[in-house]
Amino acid sequence: MAYTQRRIYLDHAATTPVDVRVLEAMQPYWAEHFGNTSSIHSIGREAQHGLDQARQTVAEVLACSPQEIVFTGCGTESDNLAIRGIALAAREAKRGNHMITLPIEHHAVSATVEQLRDLHGFDVTFVEVDQYGMADPAAIGRAIRPDTILISVMYANNEIGTVQPLAEIGAIARAQGIPLHTDAVQAGGQLNLNVDHLKVDLLALSAHKFYGPKGVGALYIRSGTELLPALTGGGHERGRRPGTVNVAEIVGLATALKLAQERRESENARVAALRDQLVAGVFERIPEVQLTGHPTRRLPNNASFAFKGVDGETLLMALDLEGICVSTGSACTTGEAEPSHVLTSLGLDREWAIGSLRMTLGHLTKPEDITTTLDVLPRIVEQLRNA
Amino acid sequence: MAYTQRRIYLDHAATTPVDVRVLEAMQPYWAEHFGNTSSIHSIGREAQHGLDQARQTVAEVLACSPQEIVFTGCGTESDNLAIRGIALAAREAKRGNHMITLPIEHHAVSATVEQLRDLHGFDVTFVEVDQYGMADPAAIGRAIRPDTILISVMYANNEIGTVQPLAEIGAIARAQGIPLHTDAVQAGGQLNLNVDHLKVDLLALSAHKFYGPKGVGALYIRSGTELLPALTGGGHERGRRPGTVNVAEIVGLATALKLAQERRESENARVAALRDQLVAGVFERIPEVQLTGHPTRRLPNNASFAFKGVDGETLLMALDLEGICVSTGSACTTGEAEPSHVLTSLGLDREWAIGSLRMTLGHLTKPEDITTTLDVLPRIVEQLRNA
Repeated sequence: MAYTQRRIYLDHAATTPVDVRVLEAMQPYWAEHFGNTSSIHSIGREAQHGLDQARQTVAEVLACSPQEIVFTGCGTESDNLAIRGIALAAREAKRGNHMITLPIEHHAVSATVEQLRDLHGFDVTFVEVDQYGMADPAAIGRAIRPDTILISVMYANNEIGTVQPLAEIGAIARAQGIPLHTDAVQAGGQLNLNVDHLKVDLLALSAHKFYGPKGVGALYIRSGTELLPALTGGGHERGRRPGTVNVAEIVGLATALKLAQERRESENARVAALRDQLVAGVFERIPEVQLTGHPTRRLPNNASFAFKGVDGETLLMALDLEGICVSTGSACTTGEAEPSHVLTSLGLDREWAIGSLRMTLGHLTKPEDITTTLDVLPRIVEQLRNA
Repeated sequence: MAYTQRRIYLDHAATTPVDVRVLEAMQPYWAEHFGNTSSIHSIGREAQHGLDQARQTVAEVLACSPQEIVFTGCGTESDNLAIRGIALAAREAKRGNHMITLPIEHHAVSATVEQLRDLHGFDVTFVEVDQYGMADPAAIGRAIRPDTILISVMYANNEIGTVQPLAEIGAIARAQGIPLHTDAVQAGGQLNLNVDHLKVDLLALSAHKFYGPKGVGALYIRSGTELLPALTGGGHERGRRPGTVNVAEIVGLATALKLAQERRESENARVAALRDQLVAGVFERIPEVQLTGHPTRRLPNNASFAFKGVDGETLLMALDLEGICVSTGSACTTGEAEPSHVLTSLGLDREWAIGSLRMTLGHLTKPEDITTTLDVLPRIVEQLRNA
């Protein structure tokens, strides 16, 4: 029995099912053009051809040169390669020791800058965001020091969906000659990825967020940007990412990215209309609820809330029993739900922040899913509040 | 047209086609049980169940506990996690600064220890190997110092197939309380992987070497072994490897490993018989040739040679034109073939070492492939020598 017949999946920000056209594009690379791209013979060259085409496809979407794309094992690895790579190269070149980022970044970014700070002595400035999770470009500009070697600002937040003003931040960074990295993992399928419009120098993607396979990511590295590899080994990916090239999944990433970007406007409009209906319905039917994240500058598929006096994880499990799959949007520890670092950074009170719920729409979402959710959710919230 | 109808693939050490049973096992995880293992809801739990089963399968093959297995993005990442993880954790704990390894390791190991030496001030001893590429356990024992924190010795060499005496080295390491890491990437499908018999504390695997998919690896980490993660991010894999878990390919790795180990003895016997026929035929028909690697303690599928006065890359390309896919077994730079670090370590003269040729057999190899190769190869070697 297919999951769609019995369950409602409102967790597209966590991951997405692989599109059938993506699976078809990957198919020839499992057992037919299965070669190692490092092999010089014809079977290796066939694999290399698939890799070249995929790189070209990704480069077209990002409006960059194919040589500026490095394929990795996941979005986390892309972020690690960007940040650790820039930091260690800058230290080698004695260019500086200071990084700027936001307190609401994904752990792939925040844990990496924290490790560089704690283990390697780098200095990190976390520039505050407003109550919607929005960064102020001028505040980032004021944080720049002569020894600043990297600014890392996410494109769209994974929990609350807020979209950052990258181009404005990029203009400031560029005027000071500082590279701007963006974790675009959550934005990849929904927002414009033109790296010149965004004025970014490094941009991280992960295929499974846009109906591609898990286990493959990409990193755009603007030509001329110096970075040390995060992993060491053979000379793959022009010396920037060793390891046998995962051709099938890279072809999957490229195919999924192209499909996502082609249908972006129509799918965004469809999904945003359903999302707006969901948000309006929640406010109509449930008292003491806040929308978290920016009211308008947010991902079109993201509806994230804080319910006062409700435990988010309990709410998630109650919805799961009704066949509705959602996320708290927070990192939970067993038994005790603590508000996430994102919600804490918004200045939300604890009694609100622990009641976080993220519903993220996507290809699987049908209008009746929203109707059903709006029938079930108010009842459960009321039950939990009265319990 | 399938490649097998027109080409002979003698490069199974570079990579292998994915087994159809492996593809079938992966299938449900692309678009049905597609959840993120970090999601608490039912779709996430289904993915987690697939991951748990895969981990159990790998643990059974290695005769270890499932908690001792970490899944990664490739063999290179497994080696990086092991070596950099142990080294940086030992430094944090002020346990020492010295590592021991072989000069014939794969770049995933050698580039990592060299980076730890050159960037982070670690001290590395490379213990010499004999003319067959075999390490002497006693020599490794003599290299141990009070500040030694890791010994890394590959299980089987990727170029020449020589199998190292891991259990003897492990006994020495264990007596001194030093962890032994082994890059078992080339051995995974062909040799016994029981970690207690091998007396290893860390063991790296890569699925695509044994008819699994590219883009997924595993690392065995003996319980109690302290290591820092190589990548930083979320808490996946018990904090040892962040990044959304690549469930489909991990299920592929586990399935492929189980299949490879089940048929290991019969397939090794079949392949070794063909390999021996190939080696005997080469010696009968071609003058001035050496077998590289150990005459008996070598991978059953590996036939690697040095042809005096022949350029290995030219030989490879001439064979490719005849539809025979092989490897030089060396890292070639454009235009000029330099002997690999492995062949140089054996003490082979340059005029022999540049004429290296690696033929590695496997599932695709049929008896007639050997017959054809033995018809074609002597003619080409003679042509090249007379050119």
